[in-house]
Amino acid sequence: MMNYGIDIWGANNFFIENGKLKINYGNQPALIDIVKEIEERGFQGPILIRFPHLIRKQINSLYNSFKKAIKEFNYKGKFKAVFPLKVNQFPTFVKPLIKIAEKYNYGLEAGSKAELILAMTYNNKNAPITINGFKDKDMIRLAFIAGFMGFDVTITIEGLNELKSIIEVSKEYHKMPVNIGIRIRLHTSGVGIWAKSGGIESKFGLSSTEIIEAVDILKKEKMLDKLKMIHFHIGSQINDISPLKKAIRESGNIYADLRKMGAKNLSAINIGGGLAIEYSQWEEFRDKNYSIEEFSNDVVYLLKEISNKKHVPMPDIFTESGRFIASPSTVLVAPVIELFSQEYTEKALKLKEKNPDLVEELYDLYKSINENNYIEYFHDALDHFESLLTLFDLGYIDLIDRSNSEILVNLIIKKAITYATLKGFKNKDLKSINEKFQEKYLANFSIFQSLPDFWGLGQRFPIMPLTKLNVTPNRSATIWDITCDSDGEIPFSKQFPLYLHDVGLEKENYYLGFFLVGAYQEILGMKHNLFSYTNEAIVTFDSEGNYEIEFLEPTQKIREILIDLDYDIDEIERELKNNIESAIDDEEERKEILGELFLLLNDMVYLKND
Amino acid sequence: MMNYGIDIWGANNFFIENGKLKINYGNQPALIDIVKEIEERGFQGPILIRFPHLIRKQINSLYNSFKKAIKEFNYKGKFKAVFPLKVNQFPTFVKPLIKIAEKYNYGLEAGSKAELILAMTYNNKNAPITINGFKDKDMIRLAFIAGFMGFDVTITIEGLNELKSIIEVSKEYHKMPVNIGIRIRLHTSGVGIWAKSGGIESKFGLSSTEIIEAVDILKKEKMLDKLKMIHFHIGSQINDISPLKKAIRESGNIYADLRKMGAKNLSAINIGGGLAIEYSQWEEFRDKNYSIEEFSNDVVYLLKEISNKKHVPMPDIFTESGRFIASPSTVLVAPVIELFSQEYTEKALKLKEKNPDLVEELYDLYKSINENNYIEYFHDALDHFESLLTLFDLGYIDLIDRSNSEILVNLIIKKAITYATLKGFKNKDLKSINEKFQEKYLANFSIFQSLPDFWGLGQRFPIMPLTKLNVTPNRSATIWDITCDSDGEIPFSKQFPLYLHDVGLEKENYYLGFFLVGAYQEILGMKHNLFSYTNEAIVTFDSEGNYEIEFLEPTQKIREILIDLDYDIDEIERELKNNIESAIDDEEERKEILGELFLLLNDMVYLKND
Repeated sequence: MMNYGIDIWGANNFFIENGKLKINYGNQPALIDIVKEIEERGFQGPILIRFPHLIRKQINSLYNSFKKAIKEFNYKGKFKAVFPLKVNQFPTFVKPLIKIAEKYNYGLEAGSKAELILAMTYNNKNAPITINGFKDKDMIRLAFIAGFMGFDVTITIEGLNELKSIIEVSKEYHKMPVNIGIRIRLHTSGVGIWAKSGGIESKFGLSSTEIIEAVDILKKEKMLDKLKMIHFHIGSQINDISPLKKAIRESGNIYADLRKMGAKNLSAINIGGGLAIEYSQWEEFRDKNYSIEEFSNDVVYLLKEISNKKHVPMPDIFTESGRFIASPSTVLVAPVIELFSQEYTEKALKLKEKNPDLVEELYDLYKSINENNYIEYFHDALDHFESLLTLFDLGYIDLIDRSNSEILVNLIIKKAITYATLKGFKNKDLKSINEKFQEKYLANFSIFQSLPDFWGLGQRFPIMPLTKLNVTPNRSATIWDITCDSDGEIPFSKQFPLYLHDVGLEKENYYLGFFLVGAYQEILGMKHNLFSYTNEAIVTFDSEGNYEIEFLEPTQKIREILIDLDYDIDEIERELKNNIESAIDDEEERKEILGELFLLLNDMVYLKND
Repeated sequence: MMNYGIDIWGANNFFIENGKLKINYGNQPALIDIVKEIEERGFQGPILIRFPHLIRKQINSLYNSFKKAIKEFNYKGKFKAVFPLKVNQFPTFVKPLIKIAEKYNYGLEAGSKAELILAMTYNNKNAPITINGFKDKDMIRLAFIAGFMGFDVTITIEGLNELKSIIEVSKEYHKMPVNIGIRIRLHTSGVGIWAKSGGIESKFGLSSTEIIEAVDILKKEKMLDKLKMIHFHIGSQINDISPLKKAIRESGNIYADLRKMGAKNLSAINIGGGLAIEYSQWEEFRDKNYSIEEFSNDVVYLLKEISNKKHVPMPDIFTESGRFIASPSTVLVAPVIELFSQEYTEKALKLKEKNPDLVEELYDLYKSINENNYIEYFHDALDHFESLLTLFDLGYIDLIDRSNSEILVNLIIKKAITYATLKGFKNKDLKSINEKFQEKYLANFSIFQSLPDFWGLGQRFPIMPLTKLNVTPNRSATIWDITCDSDGEIPFSKQFPLYLHDVGLEKENYYLGFFLVGAYQEILGMKHNLFSYTNEAIVTFDSEGNYEIEFLEPTQKIREILIDLDYDIDEIERELKNNIESAIDDEEERKEILGELFLLLNDMVYLKND
């Protein structure tokens, strides 16, 4: 039986029992039961389900593994962390996070003015705020106001001009309520799909020469005591641990030298994000080669070693892992609404009295194919089909002949596959043809809205059905979304094969879960074809282990989407009404149709299960 | 002087005069003057400028070239077209389009319920509406209501189940106010980056056998007279004309055979979209190998030939080109807000009494490099630098030594480049190093919001400065956006080199134009780091040729972005106020800071030019 790699990516968050995918928490409800309850409350279409207990688990895991490493190595610095808001800024994610964060003094990182406003509003009082990214003076002023509010604020400078702006703003206010961090440009380079983050050509960070200039400026302004942190970030999904080790060594030495140059309050190294998530469903394509224990041990050990060697205090360790914290918490569930099979039966043949020669030949091949000749006949059939399609384009055979050819070739391939299967599938061509015999699963969601990193970066997310997990899936599956776009497809891949079940949708529902989608996907989501936010639920567990649907928000209505695009909805309603009134004379009919139209306008843009 | 390939991609829409980029329409204003006027009205940050005259030009061009071909070949069918809303659904684009469309009976295509509502609201009364994509019954009901309104509606079926749904809905209403189209699955395959649209494995369309089954169903229901159109789409940017010709032949034969099978009202072939836009700035990488004249001639000629041969009436030709219509109309202008140079001067050296051996050696290399030894010395310098960085990581040299190395290596490379330039740049290493000596232009925009196809598909858009076009640009340029993301970068590419000017931003402004961005970019745009819509302007020309800024909409305020994410803005304002009141005792100060904070909350998220 297929477990969809749940032992690889699932991190014990889910398990399979009695054919159902269950949540390994509380009373272990089946995901399908939660989905059904949501549907019973009147929700249709795709549902984004958030599990705050999985946010908590990740935060615990991060803090505990560093705590353990710090104890083990008798490390003198502290461990501190912030969540980078760009990874997920939605209130349904941020608010549960903030609650969980309190216990740890887990803070927030902001990369724009809007994110900074969120941090100033929701961050726990004693938790740190770091501010990265390019900044204008307004953003620096906001950072100062956050400082006035009593938050522990560090502004990471990305260039010398920002340092100058900070100094100017401090003169405006005659106060300096923030600390300064320096993003350093490493010569060791980044890793992963998001590789450009690190390295000498990176978009971010100061060179050694610029760092020294920054120190000179701070000295001159008598503000060197405000330099608290140095920061680097080598990529948001570090697959391989070794570039991180190099980066730690490099930054550790920069830290030590800056201390020696007089930065006496420099007390933290911010190692950025990048703690990887295992997305793979296939053992041979694991995403990362280390555990969180190895990660934290390496960081702590190396920084201790450098500090001792250079006779400086061990720095606090600061992380900005976002993907690691956010990904597991969120699951997208999309109902399959139609299967597009390529099934052809002999019954559909419409053979004529007199058929084109090649069609007759195909028919003969179909009748006489057997376990000895099937490879040859299969090749002949493909050959004939090619010729027949050309004959069709040139007008020599008609659509019925073409359909007959299509059916016969498919029947021949099917027979060939049967024979080949009996013989153990040695023939390469046959195997590749079998893989082309896919079932297309049309799922009620939009890849552009819900899995943009698949579209843009080819990032694979674990996919599995929520039910029938005690039945071996035997259909090589391509997943289609409902957009009008040929990119809205997760095609069957020989390298990453996905098999799903043969289902009769008229008799049973079939749902696909897309896992580990809590990081980046929603905020990168696009309104292609105007498919917008999905339904959304927050699922918590009470003290007795029962799950509770704590929050349930429907997908955007059509009218809301149009308002979002800046359409004047009154104008739209007026025009629609005009269009009906000027066209339909019968008053009764007019009223009825108008009523129906306005109901549809207030309904969702995703498809309904008819 | 560099013209940035304007003769390749510009289609005579723009020209260069007195160093400025000008608009080849009306009184030919300079784009920079329009930008300045917009800024004078208080707008800062990136601006999206729409030119309705360029929408008109494209629609004219489409209709005229088909009109000409129809006349030339004495073709008996008509030419009809619709604009696919998915390409740009924004009111600032759609409303001007609809005005221009009236004259031609140019209609709209909808691929979702929300798009269909837009078509039903704004489409011109006698213009066609086509409906593609996957449909539930509600969408079919909306299509029927559009039919009741009097629109000429064709529902393109993507599978047999949709046909069954249409029949069921027609029984609900006891009426059939729509026509039926069939999307056909071609065996010829698609082209371009968006290639998966066509071909036997395509997400869309019916096989020959399914088409015949559809005809049987329609016959049985006595609705075959409603079959009006067959449709295909081989990709949204057809680079090469030959697959289109194959598709025309194939679909022409399907059309003819369906006529013969009794579909007597089948009268149109919808060839979908795909008429390409030339995005290239480089002669050797042109995007398409045909003109619109060749395109229309080929379509008309081939359909005439097939119709004559098969003795059927010549079909109407229907197109759904969106990219061709929308792209040229929209220009994104982003101000450059900072240059991040890698300039190192001898003055910055902080050599010690006693330097590490390799630093001393670098210094000697720097002093004694000359036109005879520069290649060798250049290699030696890189070698030493590599070793010095390793020594730094291992703690053997300090940050000042590292900075000295950095400076010396850069000075040596500069000298080497000077010598190499004198000798005509033969050495490969040197050339590649020179290309690494880029100027980084930080532009006030977000690639994720404004050029998502660059992020996702590597689609290049023409980029050029609006001014200084009488000065040869000599800086190999990398463009950074202001997001906190290393993907927010258009890196310098040897294959597609972009050179920009050396500018002193403290003395002058410098703006980059990104052209041909009217198709898809806005609706695919993402709120990464919460950077949202840019400023937007519609620029029209009056009868005397003067331009007019007809519409001007500022970029979203921070508070609006947060509301969009479903935050309770009252809660945010309350919490911010609390945070200030509980932290600041002095009432005067409190008031002042609160005022400032609320001003910033109502300001834009993009950066300001300080």
